Amino acid sequence: MAKKIAVLTSGGDAPGMNAAIRAIVRKIIFNGNEAYGVRYGFRGLADGDIFQMTAADVSTLSSRGGTILFTARYPEFAEEEGQLKALEQLKRHEIDGLVVIGGDGSYQGALALSRRGFPTVGIPGTIDNDIPGTDFTIGFDTACNTALEALDKLRDTAKSHMRTFVVEVMGRHAGDIALWSGIGCGADQVIIPEINFDIQEVVDQINQGREKGKKHTLIVLAEGVMPGYKFADLLDEYGNYHIRTTVLGHVQRGGSPSAKDRMLATSLGHAAVEALSKGQSGVCMGIVDNKIVYTDIENALEKKDDRQKRNTLNKYLYDLNQETSVWS
Amino acid sequence: MAKKIAVLTSGGDAPGMNAAIRAIVRKIIFNGNEAYGVRYGFRGLADGDIFQMTAADVSTLSSRGGTILFTARYPEFAEEEGQLKALEQLKRHEIDGLVVIGGDGSYQGALALSRRGFPTVGIPGTIDNDIPGTDFTIGFDTACNTALEALDKLRDTAKSHMRTFVVEVMGRHAGDIALWSGIGCGADQVIIPEINFDIQEVVDQINQGREKGKKHTLIVLAEGVMPGYKFADLLDEYGNYHIRTTVLGHVQRGGSPSAKDRMLATSLGHAAVEALSKGQSGVCMGIVDNKIVYTDIENALEKKDDRQKRNTLNKYLYDLNQETSVWS
Amino acid sequence: MAKKIAVLTSGGDAPGMNAAIRAIVRKIIFNGNEAYGVRYGFRGLADGDIFQMTAADVSTLSSRGGTILFTARYPEFAEEEGQLKALEQLKRHEIDGLVVIGGDGSYQGALALSRRGFPTVGIPGTIDNDIPGTDFTIGFDTACNTALEALDKLRDTAKSHMRTFVVEVMGRHAGDIALWSGIGCGADQVIIPEINFDIQEVVDQINQGREKGKKHTLIVLAEGVMPGYKFADLLDEYGNYHIRTTVLGHVQRGGSPSAKDRMLATSLGHAAVEALSKGQSGVCMGIVDNKIVYTDIENALEKKDDRQKRNTLNKYLYDLNQETSVWS
Amino acid sequence: MAKKIAVLTSGGDAPGMNAAIRAIVRKIIFNGNEAYGVRYGFRGLADGDIFQMTAADVSTLSSRGGTILFTARYPEFAEEEGQLKALEQLKRHEIDGLVVIGGDGSYQGALALSRRGFPTVGIPGTIDNDIPGTDFTIGFDTACNTALEALDKLRDTAKSHMRTFVVEVMGRHAGDIALWSGIGCGADQVIIPEINFDIQEVVDQINQGREKGKKHTLIVLAEGVMPGYKFADLLDEYGNYHIRTTVLGHVQRGGSPSAKDRMLATSLGHAAVEALSKGQSGVCMGIVDNKIVYTDIENALEKKDDRQKRNTLNKYLYDLNQETSVWS
Repeated sequence: MAKKIAVLTSGGDAPGMNAAIRAIVRKIIFNGNEAYGVRYGFRGLADGDIFQMTAADVSTLSSRGGTILFTARYPEFAEEEGQLKALEQLKRHEIDGLVVIGGDGSYQGALALSRRGFPTVGIPGTIDNDIPGTDFTIGFDTACNTALEALDKLRDTAKSHMRTFVVEVMGRHAGDIALWSGIGCGADQVIIPEINFDIQEVVDQINQGREKGKKHTLIVLAEGVMPGYKFADLLDEYGNYHIRTTVLGHVQRGGSPSAKDRMLATSLGHAAVEALSKGQSGVCMGIVDNKIVYTDIENALEKKDDRQKRNTLNKYLYDLNQETSVWS
Repeated sequence: MAKKIAVLTSGGDAPGMNAAIRAIVRKIIFNGNEAYGVRYGFRGLADGDIFQMTAADVSTLSSRGGTILFTARYPEFAEEEGQLKALEQLKRHEIDGLVVIGGDGSYQGALALSRRGFPTVGIPGTIDNDIPGTDFTIGFDTACNTALEALDKLRDTAKSHMRTFVVEVMGRHAGDIALWSGIGCGADQVIIPEINFDIQEVVDQINQGREKGKKHTLIVLAEGVMPGYKFADLLDEYGNYHIRTTVLGHVQRGGSPSAKDRMLATSLGHAAVEALSKGQSGVCMGIVDNKIVYTDIENALEKKDDRQKRNTLNKYLYDLNQETSVWS
Repeated sequence: MAKKIAVLTSGGDAPGMNAAIRAIVRKIIFNGNEAYGVRYGFRGLADGDIFQMTAADVSTLSSRGGTILFTARYPEFAEEEGQLKALEQLKRHEIDGLVVIGGDGSYQGALALSRRGFPTVGIPGTIDNDIPGTDFTIGFDTACNTALEALDKLRDTAKSHMRTFVVEVMGRHAGDIALWSGIGCGADQVIIPEINFDIQEVVDQINQGREKGKKHTLIVLAEGVMPGYKFADLLDEYGNYHIRTTVLGHVQRGGSPSAKDRMLATSLGHAAVEALSKGQSGVCMGIVDNKIVYTDIENALEKKDDRQKRNTLNKYLYDLNQETSVWS
Repeated sequence: MAKKIAVLTSGGDAPGMNAAIRAIVRKIIFNGNEAYGVRYGFRGLADGDIFQMTAADVSTLSSRGGTILFTARYPEFAEEEGQLKALEQLKRHEIDGLVVIGGDGSYQGALALSRRGFPTVGIPGTIDNDIPGTDFTIGFDTACNTALEALDKLRDTAKSHMRTFVVEVMGRHAGDIALWSGIGCGADQVIIPEINFDIQEVVDQINQGREKGKKHTLIVLAEGVMPGYKFADLLDEYGNYHIRTTVLGHVQRGGSPSAKDRMLATSLGHAAVEALSKGQSGVCMGIVDNKIVYTDIENALEKKDDRQKRNTLNKYLYDLNQETSVWS
């Protein structure tokens, strides 16, 4: 008999969530089962906002940003009550399995359902690239490209006016977007939470460039370090650098996903349905060393190695930028 | 004998300035004359930072944002001293005519030189679309497209999260960028300096949409009205609209120019050289009712009709948005 | 009593058609009337594929290419039978007025209905910019930007490899897309149907550039002149120019519309509903000398002045390119 | 004493080559050595077209497509004579090491120099993703994004007109661009050289979609299979699918590189200089399982495992598309 599999999106939206929804729905139907969507994340799940989806419903969805299933905060889901309401609704709609697309908060929700015996798997959807169990999250590549395009534009003005731009990019506690977009645009400095910065060193490197004839400066600052205007204030005390501050903000969360994000979303969505059909639960999908894998969510959330691996990478990237950007 | 014509960029940079420089240099050479560039605007002019340019020097320049001639503030040029230094340098380099690309401040500089007998013409280069003597300025169309792309992206998140976004766009004292990008993205509200807004009315219209089932709101705010966060604070007092504020900032000034801006820049650059070669001085180029024209800078700067015409247009555009955006 | 107004799209799709549909539906509802959509153009009209549309149905539609109402060829509509079937359906659905978005073929259909007494108005939607009664058609600006982006990319390769690229762009019998995108990218030559070219002259100008040190060549060819490969063959007989030919093709018809096209689509859609509500019929909307106007379709289609005006403009643009692109 | 390291680009240009040049030049100078550029690939090397480069010369280069060092075909480099001329020039300019950016043909040249005792390393630069020793080549990600954007646009028209589009994309003998862009846009079918297609099966799947209500079809065809028009002819014999054929062509080779390609180019350029400074020669840089590595060019070119690995991946991707695109 055909099984009923549902999908929801939770946490901050990210480009590629729709491509993942499409792959999940299509693969469910390809397997001869029935696909269901849940609106408004875990809140909608507790409210029973569940509806059947056809292959046509997800047509041409890959190219669109945001999530057609909407997403919402629902802290109540950390409590037993919320979880039991969700289980009741899943039972009432005769759903046999659930795919949760979202960040690490969403993984907690998926884990809770799994522990209560409901087959649930997770997919990493966030621009911040800070989810365990995967080298890359869905939306990260698009966000880097969006930030990069903005940085290229800001450089036009920085160069024409011989100014210093401090550009705050997203990433929560991670410096990944800052590093990838910063190296991409050839930023003079990339300031990230993983590595302490010394404002005097930053100033010295700017001045070194000035002496060599460089007239403008572009600094990419991860939001996890401090607000852009604060960094600008710090820098301002060391000289007249004609600073302008830009906070890129939520534009980094939207837009049509890149080829890489659509591929990742399609692969992980497809893999999530396969994992469920193989009887897996409480696992999260990921791409690790270029391979599609899954990990126990519990291990993933506890595991510190993952962040260690990422910190080592980010240290390499930080040095890479220093060695290719500073005018020696 | 071949004449020597120079070009400089002044004021805020705008996409299309390079395309104008290219057209000016090429047309000068096409006419059998010699082309010169001046670096750093009027400051560089007073300093004698003048150099010859070839057809090859401006190759493939149309596609690039910013200005290869750099631009700088130079308030000293309002004084006689700065002007005399510039005239001396122009004489020393045997320059016969000058094209100034910039905003209305730059036009003042061009007018001063013209009044002192040096053949000088102006070209409107600014994203703000607030220069007299033209319906459109070079850079405006690109800035609108840049703002529009950002708004489309922000809508993805606004819609997915059922939030309200207040987006501050540029334009100095003019609402043009706000109107064009706001109508383009189908903003619920466009708030511009030319038309007083009533916060209660704004709230009523949002609520009216909510009653009809609309769950997210996008408000485009011209910087000439007030800072985005201030407007958000105003709105916040009327209910829980889950407001996020984004200040698009300087990204609107950079980037590869649009087809329309490249065409405008090429036409006006070409026309400026023609005007000089016909003995014109103290005039500014423009596109009016779809025709390439020039006007006395003096008249242009004094004339109030121009702003009147624009205000009428902006009132029409404001109503156009109201009648197509509000969910009645 | 509330009136019922319908809208259909016909002929080739163009970016901005959806923005026009949105404006029409919203303005109809704003006026207190009911909006209806017709699927598949005049064929769907004859088949009675007519359905009511709400303000929500056209939400966030401005940003999307193509037409949600679909479009189809239906030569039968030139005959009485097709027209009578359409009138019958319009009567059966109690429709009081119709807006037709499309090219000049679509205008013929709109005119036929109007002559039979049914209130019908037209909106110019085509990328080719070849519709009478307007300076610009909906979709033209986006197509120029799409062609321009492709040309910028092709120049990267042309320059890196010191090659000659012949790029065929769309436009049916008009050279408008070729001129705007060609001038935008600084093409060495723009070949259009409105002006006869002399292959020897083209070759002379390429060779002149080569003598001055220019190593690559970019030629933009309007499809109305001849196929790209044929022009390449012509050129190939005059020397070894390392020619590559690219036919941009249908990509020029798709994509998210530009700010200018969304504004034009919104203005003309809004104006069409106003014209109908003022009792107009058999007229087409347009932007002429920067003003929103309407003209009798009959006059528009017969009028030769229009093409005359456009030919004069295109001659100016052709010369503009010659004088700014050739390395003298 | 400071060493002199040179860089050249060879074979087809690819987005990211300039970013690699920048990283190489900057890292050489960072190490306290002198950087040199060679124009026109191996031909320029044999001709001694070698010049010193400063940190400023490569400023803001990351964002630009093509190669500022130009590239050229030079089959003579397969012969001893060409190689000896190159060695003579390298000696004359006192160059100590060489980085070659290009495809597998360029690797042969690098290997030849290395065998003759000149320290030479290779970097994989081509959009086709068909170079041994790396999972991804510089330019591939950008080309996929360019193809994807075109496919999204073509889908607008395909859908609006209920047509079938056959779109030929690049990739030489590899199906990688077809798979990544095809999966990204949700193509109905992706036809690649690695997997034989059965036209009857293709037709059956299209018809199956039609029965489920799908009205348009998008087929992505790798150029390595057959020309697009030929495939269209094949398909045309099985029914009236209203086929349009588009050959994307050289636009896929140009454009500003993506974040991923800029990162890859910067990492590999940086690694190449490190490899040379560690005394390596005859090796090529790559990213394998998300790690920066180098391999003997000789082994890399002979090794068949590499293509095997890629074929397995492409088979997975092919199935992934089938299972998420077909409307079951």
